[in-house]
Amino acid sequence: METFRFTITHRDPNSKARAGLLETPHGTVQTPVFMPVGTQGTVKGLTQDELEQLGVEILLANTYHLYLRPGTEVIRELGGLHRFMSWNRPILTDSGGYQVFSMSELRKLGEQGVEFRSHLDGSRHLLTPEGAVEIQATLGSDVMMVLDECTEFPAGRVATQKSMERTLRWAERCRRAWQSLPHCDSERPLGALFGIVQGGTDPDLRRQCAEQLVEMNLPGYAVGGLSLGEARPLTYELVSASEQFLPPDKPRYVMGVGLPEELPHYVALGVDMMDCVLPTRNGRNGLLFTSQGRLHIRQARFARDSRPPDESCRCPVCRRYSRAYLRHLFVANEMLGKILNSCHNVFFYLDTMRKIRQTIAAGSFSSFLSDFSGQLQGEVP
Amino acid sequence: METFRFTITHRDPNSKARAGLLETPHGTVQTPVFMPVGTQGTVKGLTQDELEQLGVEILLANTYHLYLRPGTEVIRELGGLHRFMSWNRPILTDSGGYQVFSMSELRKLGEQGVEFRSHLDGSRHLLTPEGAVEIQATLGSDVMMVLDECTEFPAGRVATQKSMERTLRWAERCRRAWQSLPHCDSERPLGALFGIVQGGTDPDLRRQCAEQLVEMNLPGYAVGGLSLGEARPLTYELVSASEQFLPPDKPRYVMGVGLPEELPHYVALGVDMMDCVLPTRNGRNGLLFTSQGRLHIRQARFARDSRPPDESCRCPVCRRYSRAYLRHLFVANEMLGKILNSCHNVFFYLDTMRKIRQTIAAGSFSSFLSDFSGQLQGEVP
Repeated sequence: METFRFTITHRDPNSKARAGLLETPHGTVQTPVFMPVGTQGTVKGLTQDELEQLGVEILLANTYHLYLRPGTEVIRELGGLHRFMSWNRPILTDSGGYQVFSMSELRKLGEQGVEFRSHLDGSRHLLTPEGAVEIQATLGSDVMMVLDECTEFPAGRVATQKSMERTLRWAERCRRAWQSLPHCDSERPLGALFGIVQGGTDPDLRRQCAEQLVEMNLPGYAVGGLSLGEARPLTYELVSASEQFLPPDKPRYVMGVGLPEELPHYVALGVDMMDCVLPTRNGRNGLLFTSQGRLHIRQARFARDSRPPDESCRCPVCRRYSRAYLRHLFVANEMLGKILNSCHNVFFYLDTMRKIRQTIAAGSFSSFLSDFSGQLQGEVP
Repeated sequence: METFRFTITHRDPNSKARAGLLETPHGTVQTPVFMPVGTQGTVKGLTQDELEQLGVEILLANTYHLYLRPGTEVIRELGGLHRFMSWNRPILTDSGGYQVFSMSELRKLGEQGVEFRSHLDGSRHLLTPEGAVEIQATLGSDVMMVLDECTEFPAGRVATQKSMERTLRWAERCRRAWQSLPHCDSERPLGALFGIVQGGTDPDLRRQCAEQLVEMNLPGYAVGGLSLGEARPLTYELVSASEQFLPPDKPRYVMGVGLPEELPHYVALGVDMMDCVLPTRNGRNGLLFTSQGRLHIRQARFARDSRPPDESCRCPVCRRYSRAYLRHLFVANEMLGKILNSCHNVFFYLDTMRKIRQTIAAGSFSSFLSDFSGQLQGEVP
């Protein structure tokens, strides 16, 4: 595991926030980090050149989608996912489990794994813990995730516990499968494997799950099963209930979050990695995140507004285009509207993380945390 | 008219091809030039940064679309079309006539102009020759076009002649309107006005129209009413029938053409400027133009093809991405597929024009002309 190392460089004295460096087979990532989502091997609407220019250091790709199309074998033949999509920086892949539970048809869950039909063509597939690791290794992922059972929300304690226990058994099978793979293929070193803490909304089950995952001594740990509709304070509580039992020297990843104003709160709870589709999805839908609040670009009040989306933003969109132009593109249903909105939003997320890292290093994170969130939540003036 | 000048720098000894420089209020354009189409103030799918990097020196915008949305007044308030879309290089605008004839509803054509209903909201509008010039001047166009009557194809000789004569009367009204505008506003010099040769498929009417337009002593001349379904040899014949009566020292523009293999043929007939939606429209539909022929990216044979779309192309797409990846994006209906295909195709058109200019300057245009077209028309091997 020489190609994977996590080093904490700064700690915030007033919270659990920390800044560090995550070394992976495809380079080093500064943490805390936000990972844009490239579901089908592309961050929707943005070229790889643009992602690099925006400063994306790691992105997430969805195993479920790539396994079904173009297929693991195609990507293997073309030299792995990095070469396939021409992205030479780190990639984290999920296990495919979440999409099987949320997108596929006719799921049949058993101890061996989960049987499902493709949402694309109805073809039958079986995803097992061992298979999930093998697919991710074939893709050439830098950070792989164990296959977990996604507990429904809400669920009762008994069901949640049973589900959490299966997640633990599957994690152990993933770990063994991962251990048995050659870790030091000279051309393509094997990525790290992260465990996932489940346990629904029960802090005690979260603790149990975390403690038992830690015994597996994995390179990193994620908190899953969040943002399923629960109130935000509960999400924070469940992250906290999981994190406090995770080893302090290993990276922690909260999956599928969040809104910009939430990012520093997760960081304050000790989170190092986050991913979310919101910057691109909202961009396509005409919602821009700015330092002054939400900006719905379709609104008529922007029709003659010559200001950039965010006057204090240094992104390629804010440096070049006006709200009036972006509104026109959106109303005229031009592709460029979706592209530019996505570009700004991804930059805004990355820039927020940059500020978080800088203030942690400078010792001013707690004042950043208290100042930041309030401005973002309303509409722009 | 100090801000508009056309200088011929090289002539091909074996054809009417010439290379030159077109000076406009927003800079100099090397001719022969291909102008990508930015209908609604955006070349579909490409950012202005990308257009600059591809080497686009001038683009075309559609007056009809911009007049209806966001509206001439909005663009004027925001400092003109260049500032509105953040494009500081030259822009040619059409008169809006072609779209009124092809897109709007309930047209009523009279001597004064053409009354129509917007295809967007059904609102009533009257487009006159004077209005067309005024709108284009308000947009801040570098090259404006007269309002012409688009003769239907096919049409009989009498109808064609009547239509051509109205085009001439309208051209004269456009010229007067243009003359009466302040030509030397210090901040934004007035663009040039081009006449348009109509006359259907009748070479004699084309000649008459050209001769009478030339008497108006306009800065440049276009050939319109082509590519309406007539066979290509007839198109070339009609261009030729028009061009030979146009002044040799003024720029000539053939509107709405063509396929890549056709470009040098128009140039050989003395054409300096062309525009077409094909590179972007075909890009969105998965058809790539390459030096080896057409490439339909959807085809299954490209699923594992690690080669770039065109091995001899130096565009940002061919330098970075494989056919397999582009096929995946297209099949998965990802925006990035349309973006990258459009980017390659626009580059391919511009690169073809670069080769045309270079071979004219080097005296080898005729061999380029005979070599080039044959390779392009089939499917890639």
